[in-house]
Amino acid sequence: MAKQINLNADMGEGFGEYDIGDDAGLLKIIRSASIACGFHAGDPVTMQRLVTEATAQGVSIGAHPGFNDLWGFGRRRIDMNPRELEYMIAYQIGALQAMACYAGERVTHLKPHGALNNMAAEDIQLALAIGRAIKTVDRDIIYVALAGSAMEKAGRELGLPVAREGFCDRLYDDDGNLTSRKIPGAVLHDPEVVKERVVNMVLNEEIVSRNGKPLKVRLDTLCVHGDEPSGVIVARAARQGLEAAGVRIVPLPEMTLG
Amino acid sequence: MAKQINLNADMGEGFGEYDIGDDAGLLKIIRSASIACGFHAGDPVTMQRLVTEATAQGVSIGAHPGFNDLWGFGRRRIDMNPRELEYMIAYQIGALQAMACYAGERVTHLKPHGALNNMAAEDIQLALAIGRAIKTVDRDIIYVALAGSAMEKAGRELGLPVAREGFCDRLYDDDGNLTSRKIPGAVLHDPEVVKERVVNMVLNEEIVSRNGKPLKVRLDTLCVHGDEPSGVIVARAARQGLEAAGVRIVPLPEMTLG
Amino acid sequence: MAKQINLNADMGEGFGEYDIGDDAGLLKIIRSASIACGFHAGDPVTMQRLVTEATAQGVSIGAHPGFNDLWGFGRRRIDMNPRELEYMIAYQIGALQAMACYAGERVTHLKPHGALNNMAAEDIQLALAIGRAIKTVDRDIIYVALAGSAMEKAGRELGLPVAREGFCDRLYDDDGNLTSRKIPGAVLHDPEVVKERVVNMVLNEEIVSRNGKPLKVRLDTLCVHGDEPSGVIVARAARQGLEAAGVRIVPLPEMTLG
Amino acid sequence: MAKQINLNADMGEGFGEYDIGDDAGLLKIIRSASIACGFHAGDPVTMQRLVTEATAQGVSIGAHPGFNDLWGFGRRRIDMNPRELEYMIAYQIGALQAMACYAGERVTHLKPHGALNNMAAEDIQLALAIGRAIKTVDRDIIYVALAGSAMEKAGRELGLPVAREGFCDRLYDDDGNLTSRKIPGAVLHDPEVVKERVVNMVLNEEIVSRNGKPLKVRLDTLCVHGDEPSGVIVARAARQGLEAAGVRIVPLPEMTLG
Repeated sequence: MAKQINLNADMGEGFGEYDIGDDAGLLKIIRSASIACGFHAGDPVTMQRLVTEATAQGVSIGAHPGFNDLWGFGRRRIDMNPRELEYMIAYQIGALQAMACYAGERVTHLKPHGALNNMAAEDIQLALAIGRAIKTVDRDIIYVALAGSAMEKAGRELGLPVAREGFCDRLYDDDGNLTSRKIPGAVLHDPEVVKERVVNMVLNEEIVSRNGKPLKVRLDTLCVHGDEPSGVIVARAARQGLEAAGVRIVPLPEMTLG
Repeated sequence: MAKQINLNADMGEGFGEYDIGDDAGLLKIIRSASIACGFHAGDPVTMQRLVTEATAQGVSIGAHPGFNDLWGFGRRRIDMNPRELEYMIAYQIGALQAMACYAGERVTHLKPHGALNNMAAEDIQLALAIGRAIKTVDRDIIYVALAGSAMEKAGRELGLPVAREGFCDRLYDDDGNLTSRKIPGAVLHDPEVVKERVVNMVLNEEIVSRNGKPLKVRLDTLCVHGDEPSGVIVARAARQGLEAAGVRIVPLPEMTLG
Repeated sequence: MAKQINLNADMGEGFGEYDIGDDAGLLKIIRSASIACGFHAGDPVTMQRLVTEATAQGVSIGAHPGFNDLWGFGRRRIDMNPRELEYMIAYQIGALQAMACYAGERVTHLKPHGALNNMAAEDIQLALAIGRAIKTVDRDIIYVALAGSAMEKAGRELGLPVAREGFCDRLYDDDGNLTSRKIPGAVLHDPEVVKERVVNMVLNEEIVSRNGKPLKVRLDTLCVHGDEPSGVIVARAARQGLEAAGVRIVPLPEMTLG
Repeated sequence: MAKQINLNADMGEGFGEYDIGDDAGLLKIIRSASIACGFHAGDPVTMQRLVTEATAQGVSIGAHPGFNDLWGFGRRRIDMNPRELEYMIAYQIGALQAMACYAGERVTHLKPHGALNNMAAEDIQLALAIGRAIKTVDRDIIYVALAGSAMEKAGRELGLPVAREGFCDRLYDDDGNLTSRKIPGAVLHDPEVVKERVVNMVLNEEIVSRNGKPLKVRLDTLCVHGDEPSGVIVARAARQGLEAAGVRIVPLPEMTLG
């Protein structure tokens, strides 16, 4: 049976007059969109447009909740009580669910944004809080989690469907964490390098760390980015490489999750 | 068959550390709560608490969306494009639907807040925009509309269930509009006066205007307020007066709407 | 003695990760910058950068306050009490004054943004509220006002220095108001047309309306825009045309105001 | 020569319709007010009212900047880049300076709010960032710093006037830090206990820790709180105790700072 993988990207991270990222370009490449829900970015108009455009491209819709921090674009760590975080996530899921009605679609996955994603990958209490929000609002929503993170653990503990995420365009440390963006070269821009890496990730279930150490990892979804100029080119390379290697690229709800 | 009426109130209009109104007191009197959805007031924590407390009292849950104006408490008129307004309303409905999951309940009505309520009562384009949001997200949600307003018209045109609203504690002008709060005496504080008026409203389908003119009007729901110190006392008087007159006070979803 | 005129533009209208307009390009052309103050756009980091960059180019610094409406970019009309508006303007002036300290400069003019500019041009109560804020915080700040508007009147009534503003790239109606952006052709993109118009405005104190009617008007400052791709090209044409006609382009504080 | 001390309190921590704390009551007791500047609380209208009321009572005006976190009331730790924090503080100082013009007064001190105060007390980089904002905007502004904290150090390093702060109504740990509010009894409500403690603090320069250890400390200002019901009573007791012991209570600008 052919290997399959999902490609996802963050989307709709504009606000009012502002726009970031080449959403239209990425929607032709990815199969699942994580849409900003109004707290770190995204407004109701942007959200409505994205759910409609994603659906038109056969791209599945996910929530991309973040901290209540438009100025910092959700990249500042905010020390929230897990209970307050949980309700904040539930709120954002619901807001996107309503917008998804405009496309006659459902919200089928959730991936936290920015600093929240980083914190929840490390902190089981935060990861559980996000998971409880999912479970309360719609227990069929797939919890997209950095492979091996506290989020993966929390999702499994709560009995939620979990998609283990890898990153097409990021270096990894030896312990499986993403290399900090502050380290030069942490973000990959060379389409050929990316192509080779993603094929290795999916076919061999292996990521080579920045020190050359092979890490064994099973992934369900690969993240690409649209906020850098090279984003769409890198994303297209990833997709082409995978397809050339015989891998099927499918929306998250069509993945068989472990 | 006994006459029936609903009593509703605005709720959850605090924000973070801030609180306004005696929600706990009103929840024992009313049968439907219109809960602020985070734009003019309300935050995810407050919303979660209110849906839980309302449900515990058998009070039905409605959305109380407002303008994106925390500073002005949604009382400043904002000139929004109907399309943008529509999506903003859908967003707020969805957010509250998610919180309602914490109580295992559904959002069953919607009533706009403050300046938005006033504007939509007058402007059919805004009233329709709100109605389209309801229709897209959940067409069973009851559109609570000032009796005779553009909102009532819009709701009927869109085929939505409509609840015609009257106000227990407000004077009316001869044309059926509420007397402006700027006019002295526009808000009623005397429980006995209120008691007599609401019984007349429900049994005789009549409101006497501030100039003594009798206005014929059929109402499905009566609004009480909790943000003034006399609010709970006036609300209790309204309920007692109605019950003494043999009127059944029911949640909005149990009303037979015209 | 040579004619003189000021060229101004709105600046710093980004927010956090977001950016709009070619500020660096315009700073080489204009002589006065109206900097967003955090309500409709602008954050402390953006503001600090703009005051520093403007000062490095010899461009004078002005406040560009707007409504508290990041989502609508200050383009939605908000019905504010004049007293509340006044304090909101004072707040924004002060915030920019503090940032101007980073460049060792002062805030020397103020121009309202978007819907607030439109409303204050028509409504003397709002125009006076803005003027009182200026007068309270620093009565030497120049009130930039659409020539002939309620703002010009309010500024003169309060004894403030007033700079009458014209628009390089906009059509005018016969009554001297700007042609609505909704009318096709209301915004001029042809550098040669703009060049001819601005020279006529300054040398002959005349604007030809869109119906061909010559309007007599004395102007102290001309506004250019950077938020459309053609903005910098049009601005450069305006400046070159004026300089070729022997007009001196000076910062607002160097203008002799009528 | 008589001992002197300042009494300060946080003020103006309402927002729009919302209000917290008994500002009017405290203004009769304290001599310096730290006024919220619009980020964690406070809006232009509230700020204008507070500077006017404070001045009418002879109370000096200070800035009380906080994180951009209205929902969390500035009590959530936010991980900000020191440079961004610095500009955010400068912005808030400037905003209050403008409002102070309505009272013909100057902003004469600054005290960070909530989580920012806690973080800057521990982290010299944040403490220096706040200090640089003060130094840039007005180097005469007194930096109110928890005695012995990184803020005191930063203020001295930058050559700013520093007022060492103690707390009337809080327990201290043996190391001189405030006992966490999570520990029962950390906040003192008994006026007699408070009275005795503050006299000991000022006359003997000694605070007894919660374990009974005497801590030597020189203080310039004592903080009282108005957000708990007992606040005004405790504040009044502190003032009466100090005056009965012959201590002069003066505004911060009249203090001789070490």
